[in-house]
Amino acid sequence: MRCSEPALMDFCAGVMEKAGLPPEDAETFAASLVGSEMRGVPSHGITRLKAYFDRIRLGQVRPAAELSLVNGDQPGSTLLLDGNNGPGVTVAAKAMDRCLERAGEGGVCFAAVRNTSHAAAGWFYVQRAAARGMIGLSVCNTNPLTAPFGSGKPMLGTNPISIAIPADRHPGLLLDMATSAAARGKVDLYAKLGKPLPDGWIVDQYGRPSNNPADLLLGAMLPFGGVKGYGLALIIDIVASALSGAKNGRQITSFFNSPDPEGFKNIGLFMGALDVRKFLPLDLFKERVDGILDEFKRCPPAPGTAEVMIPGEIEHRNLLRARADGIDVPDNLLEELRSLAAIRSLPDPFARPGDA
Amino acid sequence: MRCSEPALMDFCAGVMEKAGLPPEDAETFAASLVGSEMRGVPSHGITRLKAYFDRIRLGQVRPAAELSLVNGDQPGSTLLLDGNNGPGVTVAAKAMDRCLERAGEGGVCFAAVRNTSHAAAGWFYVQRAAARGMIGLSVCNTNPLTAPFGSGKPMLGTNPISIAIPADRHPGLLLDMATSAAARGKVDLYAKLGKPLPDGWIVDQYGRPSNNPADLLLGAMLPFGGVKGYGLALIIDIVASALSGAKNGRQITSFFNSPDPEGFKNIGLFMGALDVRKFLPLDLFKERVDGILDEFKRCPPAPGTAEVMIPGEIEHRNLLRARADGIDVPDNLLEELRSLAAIRSLPDPFARPGDA
Repeated sequence: MRCSEPALMDFCAGVMEKAGLPPEDAETFAASLVGSEMRGVPSHGITRLKAYFDRIRLGQVRPAAELSLVNGDQPGSTLLLDGNNGPGVTVAAKAMDRCLERAGEGGVCFAAVRNTSHAAAGWFYVQRAAARGMIGLSVCNTNPLTAPFGSGKPMLGTNPISIAIPADRHPGLLLDMATSAAARGKVDLYAKLGKPLPDGWIVDQYGRPSNNPADLLLGAMLPFGGVKGYGLALIIDIVASALSGAKNGRQITSFFNSPDPEGFKNIGLFMGALDVRKFLPLDLFKERVDGILDEFKRCPPAPGTAEVMIPGEIEHRNLLRARADGIDVPDNLLEELRSLAAIRSLPDPFARPGDA
Repeated sequence: MRCSEPALMDFCAGVMEKAGLPPEDAETFAASLVGSEMRGVPSHGITRLKAYFDRIRLGQVRPAAELSLVNGDQPGSTLLLDGNNGPGVTVAAKAMDRCLERAGEGGVCFAAVRNTSHAAAGWFYVQRAAARGMIGLSVCNTNPLTAPFGSGKPMLGTNPISIAIPADRHPGLLLDMATSAAARGKVDLYAKLGKPLPDGWIVDQYGRPSNNPADLLLGAMLPFGGVKGYGLALIIDIVASALSGAKNGRQITSFFNSPDPEGFKNIGLFMGALDVRKFLPLDLFKERVDGILDEFKRCPPAPGTAEVMIPGEIEHRNLLRARADGIDVPDNLLEELRSLAAIRSLPDPFARPGDA
């Protein structure tokens, strides 16, 4: 079933607003989920709406909590922020916006954030930096799913890293990746679709390679790139937790898979922005970046490859296509969202013309 | 043949001093090469001494050049620096020291550096940050050796990334890795030892997997972790070149394998430091990091693995062992260094007791 961007945005914002988010925050939340859906990353899209909604209803997320400054008075280039158990998406977006403001003054700003919850996809925050001519970085830790190199025990989260670099003719570079071989949300999606996993994504409880999404329950994800990805994931766990006072990976429980008797998650974030203009005129920087990306697009593709892609390019094409053609929503998800809409007395965004 | 740390340090510093480096810079240069040798990373160790020496003699590196500030007056948190074609190791060490000074004030400082040359191993710079209670990051681009995901054409360098995080009971986390599947220096070392390469390190000129170090001449290295490693390597190329005005990866020619008619390399660096103390007391941070590292050391190892290692832990053990037992120098390298010593009229650090 197809749905337009504005209809889906209104629906998602409406759900989050009824959950208690201030209207502007509900809009931000919807832009993250619908944006991921349109960028072709449904694992971080509207499939998650119900879970975020439910967590607020369970009292594990404070829908209208505001960010507070713990440490980092002006004119410094660091911020220690407390999310006061607000929704991860709105807390992270506001934290990045504070970084952008400071970076516009001193050139750089990094924030460590504690007491927040699952922040959905990282592209959403770093893109805010690129849109203002800055380089953005965002990382966070998550509940343990990934084994360190040389063990089968889940110790690290998918611990994603997101980086955005602005360009002019090109859409700009937008890397958004888990440091696990795959994002947790992708494994969930394979499970939902009943499809076997690609090789190298997970090990079972004994450390044996597996293609069955169900084996993740007792097993572990693998870090990407072996020992190197493990190193990056561990560093992300440290900066997201030790700097901020948030929980480290082993202390975090899953946001999605189980009710949490402890309530608030206290997930940590670490993010920042670098203002390109402090080094050189922004136009010159963008021209250089465009030139570099041109070189990569001209690269001869290997047999079986159509073209060399820039990080974020596939997702940007998906976004343009979804904007033009509408957003496909799978049937099982459609039913879930319809029932959410019914509960909340919202208009059904999936109503066909002529439906009552 | 075994050699003591002080003897090898004196020898290397002596060679670089006679090449024209100021005594303090020669000492810094020696500490990098001997440090890598002792840490069990001989690919970035004394095997490179002759090449650095030769490049200075060819006039492609200015041995006594000083770093100058192009952009980034106080009290900002960014520095645009010009290395004035000085030796990469001393330029990078001084650039990091300037970052540490600024980060001690505002909390963070990042530097982009242009007009420098091959900077040896990145651990050397970020460790300076960790030694002062800061988190250090250092990246640089190098001549094209690595193919982007989906192509067989060398477009990116080994583009290493180095990150150090201080700890207390533990030696601290020290990640120092190429974003290629292996460091270029390691391939050189396999060639020197006449050993076949592990799978997955390189492709030949047609894009076919190869284990023959010689195939790298017309072929390419592979990025680590597929498309994810490619994304990181491309970002490193951009920040090291576009921000600083240094050459991008495609414009750089090999420092080691061929005489360069263009002379100065204009390699770029990007590095920075974050002062932990702006977020929380350093002791508390170190205690948290120690606690996290303890958890990983307690992790049950997979079959065939002795213990889970922390990034940098193996190298730290190697260092302690080399400090206690002396440094092994392979025979072919011994001959090369002996002849360097003879040219420069330096005492032979490898003289056996009783030799004339």
